[in-house]
Amino acid sequence: MKKDYTRPLDIKHGRVDMGHGAGGKAAAQLIEELFLAAFDNPYLRQGDDGARLPLPSFPAGEGRLVMATDGHVVSPLFFPGGDVGCLSVHGTVNDVAMSGATPLWLSASFILEEGFPLIELQRIVRSMAAAARAAGVPIVTGDTKVVEKGKGDGVFISTTGVGVVPPGVDIAGCNARAGDVLLLSGPIGDHGVAVLSQRESLAFETTIESDTAALHTLVAAMLHAAPGAVRVLRDPTRGGLATTLNEIAKQSGVGMLLQEAAIPVRPQVDAACELLGLDPLYVANEGKLVAVCAPEAADAVLAAMRAHPLGAEAARIGEVTTDPHHFVQMATRFGGRRVVDWLSGEQLPRIC
Amino acid sequence: MKKDYTRPLDIKHGRVDMGHGAGGKAAAQLIEELFLAAFDNPYLRQGDDGARLPLPSFPAGEGRLVMATDGHVVSPLFFPGGDVGCLSVHGTVNDVAMSGATPLWLSASFILEEGFPLIELQRIVRSMAAAARAAGVPIVTGDTKVVEKGKGDGVFISTTGVGVVPPGVDIAGCNARAGDVLLLSGPIGDHGVAVLSQRESLAFETTIESDTAALHTLVAAMLHAAPGAVRVLRDPTRGGLATTLNEIAKQSGVGMLLQEAAIPVRPQVDAACELLGLDPLYVANEGKLVAVCAPEAADAVLAAMRAHPLGAEAARIGEVTTDPHHFVQMATRFGGRRVVDWLSGEQLPRIC
Repeated sequence: MKKDYTRPLDIKHGRVDMGHGAGGKAAAQLIEELFLAAFDNPYLRQGDDGARLPLPSFPAGEGRLVMATDGHVVSPLFFPGGDVGCLSVHGTVNDVAMSGATPLWLSASFILEEGFPLIELQRIVRSMAAAARAAGVPIVTGDTKVVEKGKGDGVFISTTGVGVVPPGVDIAGCNARAGDVLLLSGPIGDHGVAVLSQRESLAFETTIESDTAALHTLVAAMLHAAPGAVRVLRDPTRGGLATTLNEIAKQSGVGMLLQEAAIPVRPQVDAACELLGLDPLYVANEGKLVAVCAPEAADAVLAAMRAHPLGAEAARIGEVTTDPHHFVQMATRFGGRRVVDWLSGEQLPRIC
Repeated sequence: MKKDYTRPLDIKHGRVDMGHGAGGKAAAQLIEELFLAAFDNPYLRQGDDGARLPLPSFPAGEGRLVMATDGHVVSPLFFPGGDVGCLSVHGTVNDVAMSGATPLWLSASFILEEGFPLIELQRIVRSMAAAARAAGVPIVTGDTKVVEKGKGDGVFISTTGVGVVPPGVDIAGCNARAGDVLLLSGPIGDHGVAVLSQRESLAFETTIESDTAALHTLVAAMLHAAPGAVRVLRDPTRGGLATTLNEIAKQSGVGMLLQEAAIPVRPQVDAACELLGLDPLYVANEGKLVAVCAPEAADAVLAAMRAHPLGAEAARIGEVTTDPHHFVQMATRFGGRRVVDWLSGEQLPRIC
């Protein structure tokens, strides 16, 4: 395509202005020089309002398409271990992967605040592009809107992912059964504590980094290790592990019994939570998953998790029980038992 | 599913609070009583982070999937003829349809501002639900985030659509050829003028209503009337007809010659534009499309458009030319000729 602009975008000193969202020349230039330059792939290069993509082919009636969406409003935009850009890729790739699907494509909708520095936008967009490339899931279509200063907060990114579930895979929140085993892919609370410590300018002895990561290859390894054995997968983001398990218990009509001593939490996250008055069970994660698994295959699935870099610290943390009240209970370190309820109210705003 | 809440949401007097975005009990209640109640469909009812959908089946290697996304930040949220809710459905359904695809599913990501009245949110969500139902395109998955008062502006909605292009259909912005005919589905400028008059509290003698509408059945009628004849489709939203035609000219490496007298504009829109210092060619539409069409089939396609309620005022507005500069030119009413350039800068902010 012919380039119609005389001067390139001044990314170093420029700022987002209302014209960048108006759909005219300035918008086209921002898309070409900032977004396309980073995300570059043949689907996005089609340059139409929608991307035309190859249709995955399975025998008629087999296989499922999966579609998931997530808005990202994390504050601050940059935090130890990540930023809103890579987070917006990982979050949606993971939502697709939690159906047992192979994520194929992403779309991205940007809502920018007037006055936001282009250099920071470029940093975010490049982080997104790197995350998408590392995950093997291209950003094939997008949209950019601009709102007046004071009507937004820097950058909001909504990503949508599409993937395919191969025939024979049936993973859903309603599939847990009494006797099933609960597996967790690693220590909890890292993401929430990393964002909060950045926001509150808290300095701990060691920096706690977000665990933000794309989990689809971990999921693939688990499904390969024991076909048919994984019944539910979910990433415990907002609301933390406690809320995620309550959701599954409700959907499946079961109870759960956790072993407190078996739930991995890094000592520095534990210490930070203590200081901040937080319970790690309710703190968001962005690179962890919980799996409900048939008991006879639990060891094989756990071994597959531990063999994967993102599941090296995976643990068996409890089991599914029969409970007409759908309670999640926890056997404490001291031999007691308590109910682990849903998060109520707002523990950590704008954590993702 | 068992209902765990003791008191239903107070939609009449309640407001969005930070807890509604925290992923806990309050968020679950908002989703169930407000969003699920309106959007209700079996895919959304799955209640998982991603929706599992039937995979459209075509012979291997045939057919294409289409994915399109759009953020909606229109201000004000309610305007004559529509609101941000139905707009967010129509905008994305249209982006999918402009590839010649049948839209199948939508996702919706809401970014809500703390303090926004639940009753207005319900009105928006119900309008979205009605638009999705009328279009036959269900909202199968979604996400809700809340930002602090003063960090957003009521409601932002990003929708993503997925559809399928049947084998043999090839519609893209790069397909226009010299000699092709330009067809427009109806009068331009209604949407932009409707939003602006609401925003500025301008009262005209007759209310100008937004043209917001889903165009996929119009597209289907056009493709049916002359298979293979429609080469490009696009909805002239932000930047208006002028910018849309410039985009296509650039993508296809062609020029265009418009006939000013043939471009339909309602008299009241023309008068309002005159008053406001706007050129209707640059004003956004949300229920119109422009088609580039093989000359021998133009009459058949135009007849099919006029036979459809959303194309009753369709017109032949010009033709595609050979032009190494990719200029869009216009033969004026007075016998002259002028270049119709891209929108530069910001004519109408937050129009969609």
